[in-house]
Amino acid sequence: MDQNKLKRVLASMEANQVPQMIISDPVAIFYLTGHWIHPGERLLALYLNTNGNHKMMINKLFPQEGDMGVDIIWYDDIEDGVEILSQYVDKDKVMGIDKTWPAKFLIRLQELGGGSKFVNGSPIIDYIRMVKDEKEQALMRESSRLNDIAMEKLIPYVVKGMTERELNAKIREIYKELGCEDVSFDPITAYAKGAADPHHVTDDSKGKRGDCVVLDIGAFKDNYASDMTRTVFIGEVSDRQREIYDIVVEANMRGIAAAKPGNKMKDVDLAARNYIEEKGFGQYFTHRTGHSIGLEDHEFGDVSSVNEDVIQVGQCFSVEPGIYIPEEGIGVRIEDLVIITEDGCEVLNHFTKDLIVVPEE
Amino acid sequence: MDQNKLKRVLASMEANQVPQMIISDPVAIFYLTGHWIHPGERLLALYLNTNGNHKMMINKLFPQEGDMGVDIIWYDDIEDGVEILSQYVDKDKVMGIDKTWPAKFLIRLQELGGGSKFVNGSPIIDYIRMVKDEKEQALMRESSRLNDIAMEKLIPYVVKGMTERELNAKIREIYKELGCEDVSFDPITAYAKGAADPHHVTDDSKGKRGDCVVLDIGAFKDNYASDMTRTVFIGEVSDRQREIYDIVVEANMRGIAAAKPGNKMKDVDLAARNYIEEKGFGQYFTHRTGHSIGLEDHEFGDVSSVNEDVIQVGQCFSVEPGIYIPEEGIGVRIEDLVIITEDGCEVLNHFTKDLIVVPEE
Repeated sequence: MDQNKLKRVLASMEANQVPQMIISDPVAIFYLTGHWIHPGERLLALYLNTNGNHKMMINKLFPQEGDMGVDIIWYDDIEDGVEILSQYVDKDKVMGIDKTWPAKFLIRLQELGGGSKFVNGSPIIDYIRMVKDEKEQALMRESSRLNDIAMEKLIPYVVKGMTERELNAKIREIYKELGCEDVSFDPITAYAKGAADPHHVTDDSKGKRGDCVVLDIGAFKDNYASDMTRTVFIGEVSDRQREIYDIVVEANMRGIAAAKPGNKMKDVDLAARNYIEEKGFGQYFTHRTGHSIGLEDHEFGDVSSVNEDVIQVGQCFSVEPGIYIPEEGIGVRIEDLVIITEDGCEVLNHFTKDLIVVPEE
Repeated sequence: MDQNKLKRVLASMEANQVPQMIISDPVAIFYLTGHWIHPGERLLALYLNTNGNHKMMINKLFPQEGDMGVDIIWYDDIEDGVEILSQYVDKDKVMGIDKTWPAKFLIRLQELGGGSKFVNGSPIIDYIRMVKDEKEQALMRESSRLNDIAMEKLIPYVVKGMTERELNAKIREIYKELGCEDVSFDPITAYAKGAADPHHVTDDSKGKRGDCVVLDIGAFKDNYASDMTRTVFIGEVSDRQREIYDIVVEANMRGIAAAKPGNKMKDVDLAARNYIEEKGFGQYFTHRTGHSIGLEDHEFGDVSSVNEDVIQVGQCFSVEPGIYIPEEGIGVRIEDLVIITEDGCEVLNHFTKDLIVVPEE
C-alpha cells in the first residue's frame, strides 16, 4: 500500500465520520496498492478502518506476487466471501461502500449486520484521486509527451485516402510503437459530417478537400491516460472554418487561463463557454468543457458550469471546448490537459494549435 | 413488454414472496421489453409490482421509439432518479433488487425507506431466462446454424500461415459477411501450446505441422448467441493426439446423452467428467463442462459437478469437455449447444466431429 495515499484516505474518513469503508473499484485498489486485480463478477474488497485494521479480500483465482502491505484474506468459490469479510468489520459503526459495489454483496453484508448504517463512501477516495501527487504528475506529463508525438505521426495519414476506421487502426499502431499499453478511449478520427457530430461513431467515410478532421486521441502509458484533440483541414480552409477555428482556440486558451487554484471548476467551463456565446456560437457548444483524468480517461470532477468545487493544486483535467454545426458539416474541437500549479497551470500538450491545412497528395 | 414472459416473472415473484422488484440489468430489460438501453453509470430501472403497478425509469438522454407497454417515468441529470422511483414503491413491503445494481442507488433507496426489507431478486428472472420459449429456441437454432457455416469457412485459413491474431480477425470478418451483429465472446483461435492452455490469450503464434488447433467461436444473430468449439490438426495427427481426440468426442457425446429433463445439471458434467477420468485424463480436464446461453454467451445455470438444479424442457446450454496437457502442447475441446426437449435434447451444432487433418499447402 502507498502509505502517503493511505494516510490521505484515512484522514478524509475521519473528517467525514466514516470510520470504516469497503473499496471495491479495481482502479481505486490499484491506486492504493499498485496491484491490478480484475475479479469479474467475484468479490474483491479492500476494507479500511481508521483504527488500522485493514484487510483485503481476494479470490484464490487471482494470486498476487509480492507483498501488498495489507493482510490478505483469501477465499474460494465455494466460500461466502462477504460472510468472511463481515467477521472483521465493526458491526456497530457506520460503513462506507464504493458506489459501484454490486447489490448482491451489499445486501448480503446488510443481512449479516456488517455496519450500523451504510453510506456511499466513494467521494472520499474520488476527491483524493483527483489531486495527483508528484509521481503521478510526472507520469501524466510523460503520457501526454507521447501523445504529442502520436498526433504528429497521425496527421499525415489524414490525406492518404484512409477511412475513419483505418485512421482509427493507424493511431492504435502508433501508440503500440511508442510503447503505450493501449488507447485510453476509442479514438475519434472524424471527417466533416462526423466531425460536426460530437456523438459520431467511427465509420468508413473518407476525407476530401475542404473537410475539417477532428482527431481526439489518447493512450495509457505506465497506467496513466493521455487525451488531446486537434482539428485539421484537408487541402484548403474556408473563411467560415477559419473563423470558427480561431474562436475555439481562443476559448481553449481562456479556459486554460481560468484553470488556477482558488477558482472553481465551473469558472473554467464558463471562461470558454462565455466567449463562444459572445461570438454567437453558444448553441453549437453542446458539451461540458472537460473532465478530470488520471488512471482513467474520465475521472470524478467535471469541468462543467455547475461544478462548484474549488480547484486545488495537483488536479489534472482537460480543457476541450468545441463548436459543431451539423448543417454545415463543420466541427472543431481543441483539447489540452492541464495540471494545476501554485499560480496557474501547466499545459501538458505542446502540439501546435496553429491552424494546419494538410496538403493534398 | 412481452406479456408471457412478464406473467412468468410475476408468478415467480408471488411464489418467492417478493411482491415488488427492481430490474436494472440491460439484458433482462431487453428480454422483457425488446428495447436495448445502455445507461452507462446512469439509473435504469424496471419496477415490477405483483399488483400490476409497473414503472420504467429512463434518463431523458435515452429516448425510446414505440410503445414499451409500461408507464415510463423520464428523468434528467439534474433530478434524483431514485427519489422519483421511491414515490411509486410500496414502502412497507419486501423489495427484490437486481444483483448488479450499483450500491449508490441501493443505498439511496434505503435512505428513502423504499421497502421493508431488501433481497437479491435476480434468481427470479435468471431462472425464467434459463428456459427458452419457442421463439427464442428458433433464434438459438438459427444463430448456431450460422456458426456451423462460420466454422466451415474458418478452418481452411488455419494452414495459410495466419497468426492467431489474424485468424481471430478473420472469423470476425466471416461473421460480418454472414449478417451477425458481433462476436458473442473474444474468439479462441489457438495453436499447440495455446490450445493446451484453456486461459491462453490470442497472440502472434503461427501454426505448424502436427499442431492441434482449438477453434472456440460464436456470434450474436438477432441478439441470440452461438458458441461452438472444434479442434483440428495441421498436416498430420499423432496416435497420442488421436487417442485424446477420441476420448473428448466420446465425453462430449456422453454429456449430450445425459442432457434430458429430470436429470440434474451436474449429471451432464459428471457424464463427461467420469469418462475422461476413467481414461486416466481427469487431471487434465480443468474446467466445468458447460454454461447456459441465450441473450448472453454465459448465462445463469452452470453445467458443473455441484449444480443440483433439475434440467427443464427449453433450457439451452453448452457441453464442452476438454483435455489440456501443457507439457505435451496438446489441447482438445469439443463443444456443442443443446436445447432440452421432452425426451432428451436437440443438438444445435451439426458441424462434423470426425477428426479433421487440414492438409498443408
